[in-house]
Amino acid sequence: MFITVERTSEGVRMLDQRLLPSTEKYLMLRSPGEVADAIREMVVRGAPAIGVSAAFGLAMGASDAVERDPAGFDQVMEQHYTRMAAARPTAVNLFWAIERMKQVAGEARSGGMDNKGIAARLEHEAQQIHDEDLESCKAIGRFGAELVADGSRLLTHCNAGGLATAGYGTALGVVRGAVEAGKKLTVLADETRPFLQGSRLTSWELMKDGIDTVLITDGMSGSLMRRGEIDLVVVGSDRIAANGDIANKIGTYNVAVLAKEHDIPFYVAAPLSTIDRNCPDGDSIPIEERDPKEVTEFHGTPVAPEGVGVKNPAFDVTPASYVKAIVTDKGIARPPYTDSLAALFDA
Amino acid sequence: MFITVERTSEGVRMLDQRLLPSTEKYLMLRSPGEVADAIREMVVRGAPAIGVSAAFGLAMGASDAVERDPAGFDQVMEQHYTRMAAARPTAVNLFWAIERMKQVAGEARSGGMDNKGIAARLEHEAQQIHDEDLESCKAIGRFGAELVADGSRLLTHCNAGGLATAGYGTALGVVRGAVEAGKKLTVLADETRPFLQGSRLTSWELMKDGIDTVLITDGMSGSLMRRGEIDLVVVGSDRIAANGDIANKIGTYNVAVLAKEHDIPFYVAAPLSTIDRNCPDGDSIPIEERDPKEVTEFHGTPVAPEGVGVKNPAFDVTPASYVKAIVTDKGIARPPYTDSLAALFDA
Repeated sequence: MFITVERTSEGVRMLDQRLLPSTEKYLMLRSPGEVADAIREMVVRGAPAIGVSAAFGLAMGASDAVERDPAGFDQVMEQHYTRMAAARPTAVNLFWAIERMKQVAGEARSGGMDNKGIAARLEHEAQQIHDEDLESCKAIGRFGAELVADGSRLLTHCNAGGLATAGYGTALGVVRGAVEAGKKLTVLADETRPFLQGSRLTSWELMKDGIDTVLITDGMSGSLMRRGEIDLVVVGSDRIAANGDIANKIGTYNVAVLAKEHDIPFYVAAPLSTIDRNCPDGDSIPIEERDPKEVTEFHGTPVAPEGVGVKNPAFDVTPASYVKAIVTDKGIARPPYTDSLAALFDA
Repeated sequence: MFITVERTSEGVRMLDQRLLPSTEKYLMLRSPGEVADAIREMVVRGAPAIGVSAAFGLAMGASDAVERDPAGFDQVMEQHYTRMAAARPTAVNLFWAIERMKQVAGEARSGGMDNKGIAARLEHEAQQIHDEDLESCKAIGRFGAELVADGSRLLTHCNAGGLATAGYGTALGVVRGAVEAGKKLTVLADETRPFLQGSRLTSWELMKDGIDTVLITDGMSGSLMRRGEIDLVVVGSDRIAANGDIANKIGTYNVAVLAKEHDIPFYVAAPLSTIDRNCPDGDSIPIEERDPKEVTEFHGTPVAPEGVGVKNPAFDVTPASYVKAIVTDKGIARPPYTDSLAALFDA
């Protein structure tokens, strides 16, 4: 198996996902700034894993600052929160984790706790976020397994697996949940350009688990659907608006439209922490535009002529009307989502 | 400018499209077998360019065999026809060009012509196929220009340009025709995995012509359509069935479905030689399955774990119902295509 991210006595240790599948190398990050950079550079990616990594980074920042006076400690932590929040704009779990850590620190300070106590609280909270995420994924897997018939051919886009979470995965959590429930299934993995999370990460972690995996390019999904070779689609999400619109890896919307055209159910799997109740709809979700070189180069080799115009949005928005159900860690939400998602929060 | 393929005194000279955009290198092929291999290995690709290349290769084969006795000559030519036809299965222009060459040779032989005369006829016929293709593309450009409004943002998939034909292009012929008619337009080029014809070839040849080009990954088209950033789609085709179903590069069907969902016109540009009147519908078109390594490796570097399952169909079929019009060298066909395409042949 592999460890996506963990807190050790030396720092925050994470698997460098940019080098997969050829090289399995772990990086030891020794400051919150290094963790923020690793998030920006996609050493780690996937909304839940980004949240967990940020929390570990902040805990490390607090532990490293215990010798300061209280005002200096709080100021350093403010800088860490700000820098961490600037790492990537779309995944809401990042802001959710930072907010949660901030609140724990604030409450402890108000309660008269010293730096050492606050740092201990933050270390505990980060580990808690990690452990809860793992539990959430397993719950998603249990709920989602019901949606997967034995013998299904399931298409997924990008990587919403153990590598995108503290482990187990969201979309791939549904896959693992179905397999644990004794169902046999084949996963079709979109390669997911430009970063190739499907070929590099999803294929890699499913093959480690011995799950039947077939890699396709992003352009093949429609043709396979038309030929009746795909039974359902399950993807993760980086942010879900209150109305059920979902932001996910660029190319997700294409798959959703194609699924609708072929009457194939399109499911989204994500923990409640991915739902941004302050975001009324998908158009309010900020979409990150990344370096054009991700599209025009491959490992430094140019694949496009110099100077060509490029678009490289990292995410797209799929309106709720394309989503058959959202599988969360608290149960399955169905349309209309404004009501069903709110009900899961209230439960 | 560039030359896609030409017959010289030394052999058949073609631009090695596998090396673009970084290297502009021409190969000199000295036998019909070498031409067939070049077609299989995609040194040259694009249905019309494949047809022209095959014709030049057969002409070369005939010229090289003139010293044989007539029976030996005819036998050698039969071998060339067979080997050439096995190079790739989907592009109908390949079979159309071989058939045309075969017929010219057969008629000349029946008329009592000697080997030298037949070879001269075949050399002439091949050059004719080349020149007609260039003229066809220009005609497609003139007809297609009417469909393109000034200021349009036009999406294309794969490369149906000068590199896919004797020059000028089919889908990109429409672009060039519109530009020559004084219209300003932006071309959005799908990168077109796995072979990257969009980034490597379409971007390259459009930038040579100074046409505004924006490269996107195949997964971005839907999101751009939803945001109102694409006005029309124009693609080429490798084979068009009598009912208007079209086979084209894998990923074309995805674009067609997305265009329909967003009420964006989806046009196909191809000469009449791409229409296979013996093929009643798209399901009768053979679809080539290519080497999985095109998906799992990049320039020899693995991007997927060893042993993963892979699908790599080179083409998909888009049913006629998604096609707003087919722009041919003899005019624009509109639904129902069974009638409108037949009428263009009769005209």
